[in-house]
Amino acid sequence: MSTIELQPVKGTRDFYPEDLRARTWLFAQWREVARQFGYEEYDVCVLEHVDLYIRKAGDEITSQLYEFKDKGDRHVALRPEMTPSLARLVLAKGAAMALPLRWFSLPQCFRYEQAQKGRKREHYQWNMDIIGLPGVAGEAELMAAQVAFLRRTGLNLEPGTPDIVWKVSNRQVIQFFLEGLGITGETFAAVCVVIDKRDKIGNEATVIELGKLGVGIEAADKIIDLLNTTGLEQAAAKVPADNPGLIALKELLALAEAAGFAHLIKIDLSVIRGLSYYTGTVWEVFDATGAMPRAIAGGGRYDKLMETFGGQPTPMVGFGFGDVVILEILSERGLLPTFSRGIDDVVFPMGPPEFAVATRVATFLRTQGRAVTVDYSGKRFKAVIERAEKDGAKRLLILGSNEVRDGVCVVRTLGGTERKEEKVPLKDLGVG
Amino acid sequence: MSTIELQPVKGTRDFYPEDLRARTWLFAQWREVARQFGYEEYDVCVLEHVDLYIRKAGDEITSQLYEFKDKGDRHVALRPEMTPSLARLVLAKGAAMALPLRWFSLPQCFRYEQAQKGRKREHYQWNMDIIGLPGVAGEAELMAAQVAFLRRTGLNLEPGTPDIVWKVSNRQVIQFFLEGLGITGETFAAVCVVIDKRDKIGNEATVIELGKLGVGIEAADKIIDLLNTTGLEQAAAKVPADNPGLIALKELLALAEAAGFAHLIKIDLSVIRGLSYYTGTVWEVFDATGAMPRAIAGGGRYDKLMETFGGQPTPMVGFGFGDVVILEILSERGLLPTFSRGIDDVVFPMGPPEFAVATRVATFLRTQGRAVTVDYSGKRFKAVIERAEKDGAKRLLILGSNEVRDGVCVVRTLGGTERKEEKVPLKDLGVG
Repeated sequence: MSTIELQPVKGTRDFYPEDLRARTWLFAQWREVARQFGYEEYDVCVLEHVDLYIRKAGDEITSQLYEFKDKGDRHVALRPEMTPSLARLVLAKGAAMALPLRWFSLPQCFRYEQAQKGRKREHYQWNMDIIGLPGVAGEAELMAAQVAFLRRTGLNLEPGTPDIVWKVSNRQVIQFFLEGLGITGETFAAVCVVIDKRDKIGNEATVIELGKLGVGIEAADKIIDLLNTTGLEQAAAKVPADNPGLIALKELLALAEAAGFAHLIKIDLSVIRGLSYYTGTVWEVFDATGAMPRAIAGGGRYDKLMETFGGQPTPMVGFGFGDVVILEILSERGLLPTFSRGIDDVVFPMGPPEFAVATRVATFLRTQGRAVTVDYSGKRFKAVIERAEKDGAKRLLILGSNEVRDGVCVVRTLGGTERKEEKVPLKDLGVG
Repeated sequence: MSTIELQPVKGTRDFYPEDLRARTWLFAQWREVARQFGYEEYDVCVLEHVDLYIRKAGDEITSQLYEFKDKGDRHVALRPEMTPSLARLVLAKGAAMALPLRWFSLPQCFRYEQAQKGRKREHYQWNMDIIGLPGVAGEAELMAAQVAFLRRTGLNLEPGTPDIVWKVSNRQVIQFFLEGLGITGETFAAVCVVIDKRDKIGNEATVIELGKLGVGIEAADKIIDLLNTTGLEQAAAKVPADNPGLIALKELLALAEAAGFAHLIKIDLSVIRGLSYYTGTVWEVFDATGAMPRAIAGGGRYDKLMETFGGQPTPMVGFGFGDVVILEILSERGLLPTFSRGIDDVVFPMGPPEFAVATRVATFLRTQGRAVTVDYSGKRFKAVIERAEKDGAKRLLILGSNEVRDGVCVVRTLGGTERKEEKVPLKDLGVG
């Protein structure tokens, strides 16, 4: 019986080597796409001051902070999202930075909520943001990066029945409509946070929540009706032709057409996003089959965040792309690559007298760039071969006392059906 | 004036892109060396149960825990080191895992201590460990990996006046000596923790601290005298020839000789390591010039840790290699590579009507594996070129209304002294 708790802290994950390989692969894809799009990676500490996340609109994310007071009585949190840290970095350098910036990051993010079955309290997230670029060219570029990544994974994004759909809306469309109902400013942001939850809590509860914000039943019904709007034409029918949100949606579709992914976009006004700071385009990426109800990724424009932090008005747009949902989807569809340990050679000294020469051989092979491990176990030959094959090694280099005396090494090729061995002079393996 | 705190949480670091590049490079070196040695990467969450770090011996690391109670009243900490988490992982799987394991990790580790000038509260650490291999072949292999990494950085490790030294001791030597003074068991571990601090606190304070553990002044003086022992011969004079620690040091030197780094090892009994769980070989890696007093890395054998956690006796050995000291050393010696943003092409649409075709061109170039950014700024030509050159781009692809009308793109080579431009048909750039 162990005297320590063997499980990780509730809601957090252990990554054994066989688990970590998928994450490492995923991160490499994300970094490669970010590189192709010319984005620079940044990072901050997982600990941040809680002030960064204090908002009046009641965002769910900030009501579930993994927060605490440190020994110096600082009120800190394990970050729930990266965007406020990004804004802090940009604000701290101020005019010293030439905009626009194209930055990305792969932060681990935390939330603390009452346990729900299978819900974790941490996940990793691919963040890409453009700072200082107004206009939907930014949105189109970010979506193109998401498309490029998902194409790399082997998912089908061709016209016809693609695997993935981008549901896109614009808060300025919603905003115009709500202004007509007398809902503005802070109340607008709070209403957005509430109606974002409609899918989860249902229409009835949404109406009640809206009532708490002072929205009458009639207005609430109209809002819910608006959320059922899909397609550019229906959206266009709800607002004047010069509505900036509507214009942005049209421009976005044109750029997506040029970039070859317009067929993946569905205008859908039910997409709101739960973060109160979004001001323009908002989007969520879904499994098109509906088999996976949770969003794969989400993004949006947040042109006012910098001002609420006391900075100059700065157009910003970005997305977050979690590790959990996409890995589930890829795993279910058999699209995860087969990962191996990547060992090239196992050197096997048959006893301690051969350890030194085995070390020499291994050192030499590593300078050739090969991945080499030495089996010091002194186990029987069969067990050594089994372990080497299990580890995916391509060759076993055998060093017994006879071999060393004769100045050779027996090199056996592993993995094949027939036994292939050759004697290689030790001087060709860096010895002597 | 900003309304948020612009600084990161006290003692933590921001990594702007220009800062992160060095860390990314460092991590890539560490991962490559780990790969060459056949180690598998693992990871756990930065949050762990505090129980993992509770030790009776008064380890400094556990007296400086960045700890707190979470909302569920769990006593948790931001990990101060990775080894206990590693042991937890291995213990949780038990006999299901075929030993030995060769694992590595690149965790961020935290400590909370009263502020000292320039001391950070977090750092990253390269950890490599072998689980299930008794005998110093493990130590030799791990040191060889450290050597391989430091060689890659361009530091001089050749015989003569190498830049780096490995100071090596073995706790079984110290243990034999202390047993002679009646110091055993838990007290031995606590004494190790105290005498590890001698360099920092001086001989006098060490004697006082030892007194608190019940060690008399005469014995304390003898211990301090022992710590001044350097070289294998002097160490051999302190213990019987069959002392297992002494034998291990001799074997280690023989294997280091075979691996080509024996000239870098100095036997030095003042090396103790501040972690109470070490049981055998202990080592610290230093700047040989002494210009950098802090250790670059440290490691050791901890064959009893698994038992104190309630598991089966399991030989374990490993090292931790921090990011801060090595990057300082490499930076001071001019050994850090020059990092660039790595952008290949900047596509410049001269106005919004060209955004769509620019998107097409960028999309095409990215499918060729090139790193491409689009400059949507609409700025003057000079500013666009300056920004592209500042970003390290090799080519600027110019798309004005005339070019698009004529079905061409002006491609200018950047960075040279003379202006080199050519007109490339748009159909060769994926358009039309």
